[in-house]
Amino acid sequence: MQFNKIIEKLKQGQSGVVDFKIKNNQVILAASSLEKATANDISFLDNNSPSNLRNLIKTSQASALLLPADDNELAKIVEKLSINWISLKDPKIAFAETLEFLYPSEIEKEGIHNSAVIGENVKIASGVSIGANVYIGDNTEIGAETNIHAGVVIYKNVIIGKKNIIHSNCVIHSRSKLGDECVINANAVIGGEGFGFVPTSKGWKKMPQVGKVILKNKVEIGSGSTVDRPAVGETIIGEDTKIDNLVQIGHGVTIGQGCAMAAQVGIAGGVQIGNAVILAGQVGVSNKVKVGDGVIASSKTGITSNIDAGKVVSGFPAIPNKLWLRCSANFKKLPEIAKAIRELNRRSPR
Amino acid sequence: MQFNKIIEKLKQGQSGVVDFKIKNNQVILAASSLEKATANDISFLDNNSPSNLRNLIKTSQASALLLPADDNELAKIVEKLSINWISLKDPKIAFAETLEFLYPSEIEKEGIHNSAVIGENVKIASGVSIGANVYIGDNTEIGAETNIHAGVVIYKNVIIGKKNIIHSNCVIHSRSKLGDECVINANAVIGGEGFGFVPTSKGWKKMPQVGKVILKNKVEIGSGSTVDRPAVGETIIGEDTKIDNLVQIGHGVTIGQGCAMAAQVGIAGGVQIGNAVILAGQVGVSNKVKVGDGVIASSKTGITSNIDAGKVVSGFPAIPNKLWLRCSANFKKLPEIAKAIRELNRRSPR
Amino acid sequence: MQFNKIIEKLKQGQSGVVDFKIKNNQVILAASSLEKATANDISFLDNNSPSNLRNLIKTSQASALLLPADDNELAKIVEKLSINWISLKDPKIAFAETLEFLYPSEIEKEGIHNSAVIGENVKIASGVSIGANVYIGDNTEIGAETNIHAGVVIYKNVIIGKKNIIHSNCVIHSRSKLGDECVINANAVIGGEGFGFVPTSKGWKKMPQVGKVILKNKVEIGSGSTVDRPAVGETIIGEDTKIDNLVQIGHGVTIGQGCAMAAQVGIAGGVQIGNAVILAGQVGVSNKVKVGDGVIASSKTGITSNIDAGKVVSGFPAIPNKLWLRCSANFKKLPEIAKAIRELNRRSPR
Repeated sequence: MQFNKIIEKLKQGQSGVVDFKIKNNQVILAASSLEKATANDISFLDNNSPSNLRNLIKTSQASALLLPADDNELAKIVEKLSINWISLKDPKIAFAETLEFLYPSEIEKEGIHNSAVIGENVKIASGVSIGANVYIGDNTEIGAETNIHAGVVIYKNVIIGKKNIIHSNCVIHSRSKLGDECVINANAVIGGEGFGFVPTSKGWKKMPQVGKVILKNKVEIGSGSTVDRPAVGETIIGEDTKIDNLVQIGHGVTIGQGCAMAAQVGIAGGVQIGNAVILAGQVGVSNKVKVGDGVIASSKTGITSNIDAGKVVSGFPAIPNKLWLRCSANFKKLPEIAKAIRELNRRSPR
Repeated sequence: MQFNKIIEKLKQGQSGVVDFKIKNNQVILAASSLEKATANDISFLDNNSPSNLRNLIKTSQASALLLPADDNELAKIVEKLSINWISLKDPKIAFAETLEFLYPSEIEKEGIHNSAVIGENVKIASGVSIGANVYIGDNTEIGAETNIHAGVVIYKNVIIGKKNIIHSNCVIHSRSKLGDECVINANAVIGGEGFGFVPTSKGWKKMPQVGKVILKNKVEIGSGSTVDRPAVGETIIGEDTKIDNLVQIGHGVTIGQGCAMAAQVGIAGGVQIGNAVILAGQVGVSNKVKVGDGVIASSKTGITSNIDAGKVVSGFPAIPNKLWLRCSANFKKLPEIAKAIRELNRRSPR
Repeated sequence: MQFNKIIEKLKQGQSGVVDFKIKNNQVILAASSLEKATANDISFLDNNSPSNLRNLIKTSQASALLLPADDNELAKIVEKLSINWISLKDPKIAFAETLEFLYPSEIEKEGIHNSAVIGENVKIASGVSIGANVYIGDNTEIGAETNIHAGVVIYKNVIIGKKNIIHSNCVIHSRSKLGDECVINANAVIGGEGFGFVPTSKGWKKMPQVGKVILKNKVEIGSGSTVDRPAVGETIIGEDTKIDNLVQIGHGVTIGQGCAMAAQVGIAGGVQIGNAVILAGQVGVSNKVKVGDGVIASSKTGITSNIDAGKVVSGFPAIPNKLWLRCSANFKKLPEIAKAIRELNRRSPR
């Protein structure tokens, strides 16, 4: 795609084209990081890119750059270079859009493979692709243009909306309900039984898990992640919430809209999470805790009690991030602290 | 099912019916939490339910309630309500039993699907269900009434007992042995090779893992969990031990009876765990450590050395839970502690 | 295999046979740990085995032992026993080699199963085994003697080298490239899409992940682990690096040669890890951090900033291991420390 074509396409997008310069209208064949870009590549610098990345601009072999607007220093640098550029309000969004049109997504295989096993009374809308060796149970519904990759197993009585992508070897249990435009990455398990056992004198009594999992529109679930169904009621993940790999969502959890949860997060049963919550890698949230809107927890945080909206927390048990940073700095000094106390005791004896 | 029928059934169960009142003998169609119950629902209050749940009793739309016996305050409240109720020694067990008879479990599909690939010399007992696209290796044995869901792979020389449920896309490696009434949830891996590499001057030398995994009766393994086989000997999980999702059980681990391990627990190689041990979410146990009977570890605990029977531990490295709670409370005060020492030094100079 | 045959075979290996004694040339049928060895078993004692294992030598029922050389005390003990033994520079390597020839590895099933679904223009070299219900996408290449177990899904445009073992129900996404002699354990996901979302006023904007994953020769990936592809460029795992179960490798990560990562480790996007790095269980590494050659991190360490080569680190945030051990010891004394300060303040008032 020629550079001027990319300008035209970005103008129709969300990234806010401010200015551009066509120094030579090269064909852009690929997108790369600044470190690795070569001729015919397009690359980008984000609004908050560190100075070592900014310096790469001067020597980059890229043919075109997406740059933050309102950056006079950068403007002076690129002025001297024989490189095509576009300045934008949000160059990272521009890069995402550029990737979309340079690398149009393709489905693995069109149509319904003849090795797929489809149960009775299954409703399959138009434009659905179903890969090899897929199994779909009785009474399940698959919405239009949904793409189910090879090896997926969908139990009976599942409702799946439109334009979902379900990657290979995922398992979706009975009664689960997916909205539209969800992505379920490979080997994820949706709607498995919650971990509910009641102690009795004869050992564990299993609490039957007859509830279901509901994923709203635009939910994405990472590879190998698990979302459990509850004893009664629903486990709900809100619209546009994105979940990374190997995350555990316990039974009866409710998660709001627009959240992001990084890899290996674990959410115990009955937790209620608000909207726009960000949990970094390996965070844990204990049973039935409530996490308010907009809460951010840094990596490895253990949230054991309710957190008010808007708080930034860290550590285990979770405390305000700024306090935790100061406490952690002092943790490293504990041997000195202990020594200081011994000396003070010596100087000021009982 | 009419309310009086539920009373009759619970009397035959484990929950200990103490008293009941049929105010109107409604049909009970579903089970719900107190918060969400509507007409024709049955719900429950546990012996230790918090006061906000207890208060919901007054306004609940449920048609019937399972309640703790010997609770005079509750007895007065329900007396005034036009609601059917049963009082019990253990209302939570009663709720589990009620779920069982209101929602009888159903298998995904009866019989052996014609797309399943069965090896040579496989023994399949009566009443076994094998789903679509299952693979079963040579010389494997499947006990009566075991239910193997679509997409499961069982390697050769595996022995599986009676009445097991193996959910879709699980993998069970050679020489594994499952008892009776186990549940292996979707995408779990049983008997994969242990992580054993010996450093040499030419790089890692792989220690062949020729041992096997043994799951005793009534073991349950969560979705995506992994149980590794050892170099020699066995990895053993004891009867009635329940393991949640995304748990790692290393090679050569021995786990006793009646344990419960929450999601994302990791047990390193050679660990020995006693009976009735409870490990909360994201707990880790280091190589070859011994954990005594009845030990409880709270979430994110890191057990790096032996723990005596009956201890309750927390933190990393694990210390007694009560001590850890006091230490954590003081961790938050570390900046104050450091400041106090600076001031003391100022007042009492060397 | 008779004991003298084992001696001959070990002499050809890497373990350094120093001496041996054939007391009676028994047939060795199996290998066992010292605790469990019975007649016709071979067992071993490592150079650094603890004293309780060393004491087992005197009473072991094993027919043959692999022992560390240059250990006079041991030499005296075995002299008195009617047991065959071999002394070696590295008995653990000798045990690994013995397992290899006592238990030759066997593949699940030879040949290409007729239920496998092979796409168009797939190149399959000689000696490849492909199990039941495998799916291989268009234009994928499978190198000689590679063994793909039942239920594996390989998307299109994947390149797989020679002598790989890919266990059941793994998923390998488009454009992934595997070297030779890799082992991908069951239910692992290679090349899934990285977790990249840009916040916008309309919600999350997905950053397309058009890069790829490269695994060099002799890489091993544990059951259920996930290795993500990046937006642009590559995620690379270096030669002879071994990764345990349920590990997350984020998008754009580079890992050097000869590393080992234990179960449930999580590596965030863009991290650069050197050669011969050892990460113990449940370690986390934050976005874009650089970890130098030879770094060792103990279990549950959280690496949030760059670590120089050769360092041994622990804790969260990671600090030098020796310092962390002293800090942790003092953490347990925090209630005493706080009390000491209260007393000092009483004695030396403002």
